[in-house]
Amino acid sequence: MKNSFREVSGSVCAPRGFKAAAVFCDIKRLGTGKGSEKGTKRDLALIVSDVPAAVAGMFTTNQVCAAPVKVSAKRAAQKTARAIVVNSGNANACTGRQGMADAKRMTQIAATALKLKESDVLVCSTGRIGVPMPMRNVERGIRACAPLIAGSTTNARHVAEAIMTTDTRRKEIAVEFQIGGSTIRIGGICKGAGMIQPGMSQIRHATMLSFITSDAAIDSRLLKRALDAAVAQGFNRITVDGDMSTNDSVIMLANGLAKNEMISSAKTLSIFQAALNFVTLELAKMIVRDGEGVSRFVTLHVHGARNTRDAELAARSIANSSLVRTSWCGGDPNWGRVLCALGYSRAHVDETIVDVGYAKSGSREIVFAFRRGRPTNISLKILAKITSAPEFDLYVDLHRGRGEFTMYASDLTEDYVAFNKGDVNDPTTLGG
Amino acid sequence: MKNSFREVSGSVCAPRGFKAAAVFCDIKRLGTGKGSEKGTKRDLALIVSDVPAAVAGMFTTNQVCAAPVKVSAKRAAQKTARAIVVNSGNANACTGRQGMADAKRMTQIAATALKLKESDVLVCSTGRIGVPMPMRNVERGIRACAPLIAGSTTNARHVAEAIMTTDTRRKEIAVEFQIGGSTIRIGGICKGAGMIQPGMSQIRHATMLSFITSDAAIDSRLLKRALDAAVAQGFNRITVDGDMSTNDSVIMLANGLAKNEMISSAKTLSIFQAALNFVTLELAKMIVRDGEGVSRFVTLHVHGARNTRDAELAARSIANSSLVRTSWCGGDPNWGRVLCALGYSRAHVDETIVDVGYAKSGSREIVFAFRRGRPTNISLKILAKITSAPEFDLYVDLHRGRGEFTMYASDLTEDYVAFNKGDVNDPTTLGG
Repeated sequence: MKNSFREVSGSVCAPRGFKAAAVFCDIKRLGTGKGSEKGTKRDLALIVSDVPAAVAGMFTTNQVCAAPVKVSAKRAAQKTARAIVVNSGNANACTGRQGMADAKRMTQIAATALKLKESDVLVCSTGRIGVPMPMRNVERGIRACAPLIAGSTTNARHVAEAIMTTDTRRKEIAVEFQIGGSTIRIGGICKGAGMIQPGMSQIRHATMLSFITSDAAIDSRLLKRALDAAVAQGFNRITVDGDMSTNDSVIMLANGLAKNEMISSAKTLSIFQAALNFVTLELAKMIVRDGEGVSRFVTLHVHGARNTRDAELAARSIANSSLVRTSWCGGDPNWGRVLCALGYSRAHVDETIVDVGYAKSGSREIVFAFRRGRPTNISLKILAKITSAPEFDLYVDLHRGRGEFTMYASDLTEDYVAFNKGDVNDPTTLGG
Repeated sequence: MKNSFREVSGSVCAPRGFKAAAVFCDIKRLGTGKGSEKGTKRDLALIVSDVPAAVAGMFTTNQVCAAPVKVSAKRAAQKTARAIVVNSGNANACTGRQGMADAKRMTQIAATALKLKESDVLVCSTGRIGVPMPMRNVERGIRACAPLIAGSTTNARHVAEAIMTTDTRRKEIAVEFQIGGSTIRIGGICKGAGMIQPGMSQIRHATMLSFITSDAAIDSRLLKRALDAAVAQGFNRITVDGDMSTNDSVIMLANGLAKNEMISSAKTLSIFQAALNFVTLELAKMIVRDGEGVSRFVTLHVHGARNTRDAELAARSIANSSLVRTSWCGGDPNWGRVLCALGYSRAHVDETIVDVGYAKSGSREIVFAFRRGRPTNISLKILAKITSAPEFDLYVDLHRGRGEFTMYASDLTEDYVAFNKGDVNDPTTLGG
């Protein structure tokens, strides 16, 4: 059973030597001049490793990226780090030079409170864009948070809560597996909801935030490579609204306290990778399912593209089409819109040979609506029965090659619009 | 006053020698098995020139394009044509070989009824995708329509009505101007509403439909070039939902009955072009203002891009962002989302020098929200006053070069979603 892993509790505090805590310091209020909806939701958190941990990070590729992204991208390129300070309620994006100073100052305050070096602390922010960080509250928050750090499941849960913005539920997971007789754990949390179509790279690629911890012993070069692969098959395969945030960040720390033999062989790495892939994919799916106003979760399989890139182009075009997504909202198997979105994608598409089919979630029994360039005789009723379920699978075969891509997508609902449109009579809902 | 033009009535029948008519033949009902909402809305039309007319056409670049697009693109490459047959209620898209046969047959029936050659007739369809054309009704409709053709303003209005699908109002315009002592007219109609982000070329580029007629004497080569330029600054600068249809088509006929000296000099061409540009841009703006669920019309000016292509990439990224468009819906000056969309565009953006400002519709008095990479001190209240009007202008200056692009965009509303989501309990709302 070497290749298997099992889920455990504790998320980011499940691996040995990781502690965490979160507090409420009213960051959103200060940013907008009005009380937050839930006055006591935690909004500032710390995640700390007892010992120096190999670090890896992937960040948004948006050219307009937040100050904390700039600071953390640099520090994630180091070999090791110790801690992450994170806040919700303010993105510290489009805040100019003051924003950069504030992001660095957050790491400095955290370092002092935790008795670490400033460069050992990474920082993430999520929330309103263009509003200066309320640094007095942030400083008070970090100082209040530091003494509370503990490796408890409760504290891990508080942190998962503290990073939520429009999320309706915490997103956390942890797994345990064996490498050479040692028990290794990987834990992760994330937040998502809107502005979700991550495109991350080690250079500058993610407002989804995810923090992953592990007690595995692995060097930072391999960790960065493993995280890159995990993000590519996880966070980079989801979309909620097609908007890529200024703040997307995935940060991983691996502190070696599992005392396993350093991961290096292809075999041990593949065990580690499989567990990490599971963690990131599950977290990614949680983001889609809890996306703003989402009522339907669609697993979109594109097969038969000329190559993987074409498959991805086709999948993203479908998954981001407003008309396809609104049809899903109504439970409508509108394969005509799917074909339309395929046609304007930059993938090579020959409509005379395309298949489009639907299946119950997880089922491989595909009911084709369009086959080899022609509508089938299937009744709309049968198709609608599949597509009116909360989750279903959509299959597209281009019959041009062997390129494949799977994406996790969602519908576009009236709730999404209501949620994001703001209200000119209520400034706290307006953007900066 | 040689360079000026004035608006006149009659749209496609305003130019000499153009006749038109439209009838109801229940195309939608046959397609879906249920009565259309308004049982008597016209759904089939003919536009006919008394004499052979120079022809030009631009069609959708969607790789999945409807049968009538394939037929008409070929015939628009001819030097002349005489007539257009068009229906709403069924797009004849994704209908395989039968669809191609049906599209050709429509032109054949029209040619017989009008005593023309089949190759002189172009065809357009708009409506449901993937449903076979109800050819019995179509044939009956064309035969009933042909004897009704007349050059009246009323008939032109009937045609503008017949091409409407989800449009809430007719879109028609005509202008009159002088070239060398001759009075020339250009008339146009169009339909739009959803699936709107045309990308058209003479090869295969547009479900917006537009038909433009003129009595100018101009050869087909120049006419094609003039239409190309007019579409580039008109229909190709609008977006409603970012979806490019399978059926978009713009067809122009110019029959020479104004008896002007053949347009060929740069000077006469520029007069003709100015009038044609006005017609296409006004029609394009009508499409955005009447877009599905649209409550706000935004004129988006991007300046200072490295080049025109970068300016266009930046403008399209903003105009198609779900988050930017929902913020507009609420009247929210969410410039943070504008910056975010800029950042993930493929245009070169340096956030430290970007300006973002708002102005009342048509005003050049820009109120900056973000200037040279920093938020200004302007109050959200002042900005929201501008952005809560039904129309406003958004200015972005990238300060990188001299590239400019203007787009006409709209908000994303709950009504758009409600409109497009279909209802599994009412199959007539579901897609093919």
